[in-house]
Amino acid sequence: MKIAVLGTGTVGQAIAARLVELGHTVTLGTRQVEATLARTGPDGMGNQSFAEWSAAHADLGVETYAVASAGAAVVVNATSGAGSLEALSTAGAENLAGKVVIDISNPLDFSQGFPPSLSVKDTDSLGEQIQRAFPDAKVVKTLNTMTAALMVHPAQLADGDHSVFVSGDDDDAKAIVTDLLHSMGHRDVIDLGDITTARGAEMWLPLWLRVMGALGTPIFNVKIVR
Amino acid sequence: MKIAVLGTGTVGQAIAARLVELGHTVTLGTRQVEATLARTGPDGMGNQSFAEWSAAHADLGVETYAVASAGAAVVVNATSGAGSLEALSTAGAENLAGKVVIDISNPLDFSQGFPPSLSVKDTDSLGEQIQRAFPDAKVVKTLNTMTAALMVHPAQLADGDHSVFVSGDDDDAKAIVTDLLHSMGHRDVIDLGDITTARGAEMWLPLWLRVMGALGTPIFNVKIVR
Repeated sequence: MKIAVLGTGTVGQAIAARLVELGHTVTLGTRQVEATLARTGPDGMGNQSFAEWSAAHADLGVETYAVASAGAAVVVNATSGAGSLEALSTAGAENLAGKVVIDISNPLDFSQGFPPSLSVKDTDSLGEQIQRAFPDAKVVKTLNTMTAALMVHPAQLADGDHSVFVSGDDDDAKAIVTDLLHSMGHRDVIDLGDITTARGAEMWLPLWLRVMGALGTPIFNVKIVR
Repeated sequence: MKIAVLGTGTVGQAIAARLVELGHTVTLGTRQVEATLARTGPDGMGNQSFAEWSAAHADLGVETYAVASAGAAVVVNATSGAGSLEALSTAGAENLAGKVVIDISNPLDFSQGFPPSLSVKDTDSLGEQIQRAFPDAKVVKTLNTMTAALMVHPAQLADGDHSVFVSGDDDDAKAIVTDLLHSMGHRDVIDLGDITTARGAEMWLPLWLRVMGALGTPIFNVKIVR
């Protein structure tokens, strides 16, 4: 499939590289292509610069949000939660219409330090906000409940014996996303229901953050034992 | 140990009966003893009346919140989240001082129907509110992340291979609670940290509710796979 991955951070890089590995044609979307490609030196978290990473992934195109989305059948929102609605607006509603939009973002608010709180929660969710803002897109919330490395290579932990959730209004879109998740190695995809159930998946983050603190690693995931 | 279980609903009954089974001396605490014992006929959920249940558990005393707490070394808050602060006030700060208070409640707000939202979240929690209201108590949040049947008999599901969390400021109190949890059959007790981490444990509820909807049963629990 032709897939646009919006966002060039850790999550976007992990998703894009894995989708290429699985045989998809992937274009990364960014706000300003020149500025993104000009990023050299490690980022604030000590990660490789985008320029270095990109040079090592020559099979990945880098385009604006709009160009990347226009050419894709599936669009992945891997931008930060605080910037997601604006990034998708820049991508253009016409470039998202009728398409599966996989929303991985979390509405984290770091303004009061760590751990972050949620900028939207409980009676609404970022997934719903995106669906309302782009009513012709088929938004599916998924993968936001784990660290990037496990999103794309779940089998590295307990042979993939843990769970991932999907939330969305369109059953066909959820089926496409579920197939993608299976192809990455996810074994237990739980369909929570319509896009309002993204409230649950996003509100997992505050517990995820405390478990990460307790375990001292982000390499863990939830399994729904039943 | 002498343990007071405040709250005579499904959770209180399950906890109290299990603690008796484990050899503890348990007193149930309720607002008005006569009114509670006068409850006959099934409740709104079709459960056995308290009078019938109580008659079958003659080894369990039923007292006011205050009398039950005064005589106990450990106090369990199994009241509904909306009524917890008032119930504990009625129990009396002097009857909670210096004691382990196990808080199982969830701050569920059903005013807008089902699924409920949370009346406190993200930047505060009911566990913290209780600790602030009763600074001399040693509050430990736990067990609120699963249905009552699994709280007390976790081994009925996957031989107990799933997780439970504890949050609290007092390490000795968490050790006592962890021992109690182990005695019930819990195998994986994760210490999340101080009482502020109760925010995480309480914010799991919105996802728990959606998973229950998706699975069609409350008999499931989270396992932290790492």
